[in-house]
Amino acid sequence: MTIEKMGEKEISRRGLLKGAGLVAGITLAASGGMSLLTKAEAKGASTDKWPWPYVKLDPEKTAELAYDEWYRIFCGAAVISSVFSQLREKVGEPYTAFPVDAFIFLEGGMAGWGTICGSNAGANIVSNMIIGPRIAGPECENGAAIGADALEWYCETALPSYTPKEPRVKTAIVQTTSNSPLCHVSVGKWMKASGYAISSPERRDRCARVTASVAYNLVKDLNAWKDGTYKQKSSWKAASNVGITAQQNCTECHGANVPSAPSAKK
Amino acid sequence: MTIEKMGEKEISRRGLLKGAGLVAGITLAASGGMSLLTKAEAKGASTDKWPWPYVKLDPEKTAELAYDEWYRIFCGAAVISSVFSQLREKVGEPYTAFPVDAFIFLEGGMAGWGTICGSNAGANIVSNMIIGPRIAGPECENGAAIGADALEWYCETALPSYTPKEPRVKTAIVQTTSNSPLCHVSVGKWMKASGYAISSPERRDRCARVTASVAYNLVKDLNAWKDGTYKQKSSWKAASNVGITAQQNCTECHGANVPSAPSAKK
Repeated sequence: MTIEKMGEKEISRRGLLKGAGLVAGITLAASGGMSLLTKAEAKGASTDKWPWPYVKLDPEKTAELAYDEWYRIFCGAAVISSVFSQLREKVGEPYTAFPVDAFIFLEGGMAGWGTICGSNAGANIVSNMIIGPRIAGPECENGAAIGADALEWYCETALPSYTPKEPRVKTAIVQTTSNSPLCHVSVGKWMKASGYAISSPERRDRCARVTASVAYNLVKDLNAWKDGTYKQKSSWKAASNVGITAQQNCTECHGANVPSAPSAKK
Repeated sequence: MTIEKMGEKEISRRGLLKGAGLVAGITLAASGGMSLLTKAEAKGASTDKWPWPYVKLDPEKTAELAYDEWYRIFCGAAVISSVFSQLREKVGEPYTAFPVDAFIFLEGGMAGWGTICGSNAGANIVSNMIIGPRIAGPECENGAAIGADALEWYCETALPSYTPKEPRVKTAIVQTTSNSPLCHVSVGKWMKASGYAISSPERRDRCARVTASVAYNLVKDLNAWKDGTYKQKSSWKAASNVGITAQQNCTECHGANVPSAPSAKK
């Protein structure tokens, strides 16, 4: 499915099982009145066992939470928080053990560098944490699939697609289609279309709404997965399609001179 | 320091403290012979309290672990594993609770899309998980700083800079300087210089060595931070430097026509 899968000869589950064993050596025992877990439930709630327990969430409520959280921890951590904060209440462990706030560094395309839009990184973190890594078995491959869907959906959708019930900026926010999962390209096209500066309240609210839009879309897919009706929508396999890890907008950077990737194993 | 800091008016610690309280409601009790933790140590090891306990690691050993782990869980998760697997042994919680393998999705610049090189994402995850998010207090700001340093170092360094003791590919691996933290650009420049295809053993070993190089550099900074001698080396502040989240290689995509970012709050 992904780039490194092309050339890999063998994925051993040894290391994975070893890691799981280490965690299994610790028993989580609920104490105090705040946890909803029984001791038995907690014992089974290892972070290295997938899928993590999931209950269906309301996409609209999730989007509202993501919008509000953007103003505290920004795009990437806000997407994670919007899902995990609800699952902390409804499920408990392993969601309570995940250090959501530390992912604030995803802001501005990672520390302001404009690389992957934090909301896309957050969506991939959520789907892969809940459903699991592809090496954990076939039942976990939808984690990567939902993450890949999130990237393609982000590229193709006029964003922000979600309007919060009580937006902080009351004026209309223009929608733009990025054709890229990168913060720099997404924000840049929106700034060009809107004329607003990076530090303006409008740009900030736009990004909060994009974060809400991504969270809404993500939870729709997670709910479908929980129902057993999820099917992967994205089909982009860059390494086999164009011979290199890539987006789909080659000419946007390369112009007419898109290089050919070396194709032979020299 | 980062983009969203420019416009933010107020960061409340309310939500952070609320989250920490939720976790504090669960007591981790060691059971069985595998854990090195006493009950008291485990009780204090909340994932939402920063900094996480850190002991200095050997950069070379860390690089070797990262190199080996690349062949199991690839760039991003391998950097995390190289540091956290040692701290799981030396410290225990909260490192045992972090689901390292799920970060395999960082491979190929996130699900093969060629965005942020996974090793850069992994380095940022490690530094921000250990030292903490910037909103957790001034003592935590070095988490973001070391992450930003990792990005700039990656752009400016001829990679791979680390040669494993027993490399799987015995031939020389050409070094290239990416001037970008993106997988597509980094791998693309190396493929052009080397002539090797994406699926070749040489390209795969190059990426494993880059992962080792990033882990080596990361641990040097973490050790300096532990010693109290760390000083931020990177100075890139895209939003204030160029008015948008960005890398430093504008002309590489834009050519001579680098757009001006809207500067006024319309």
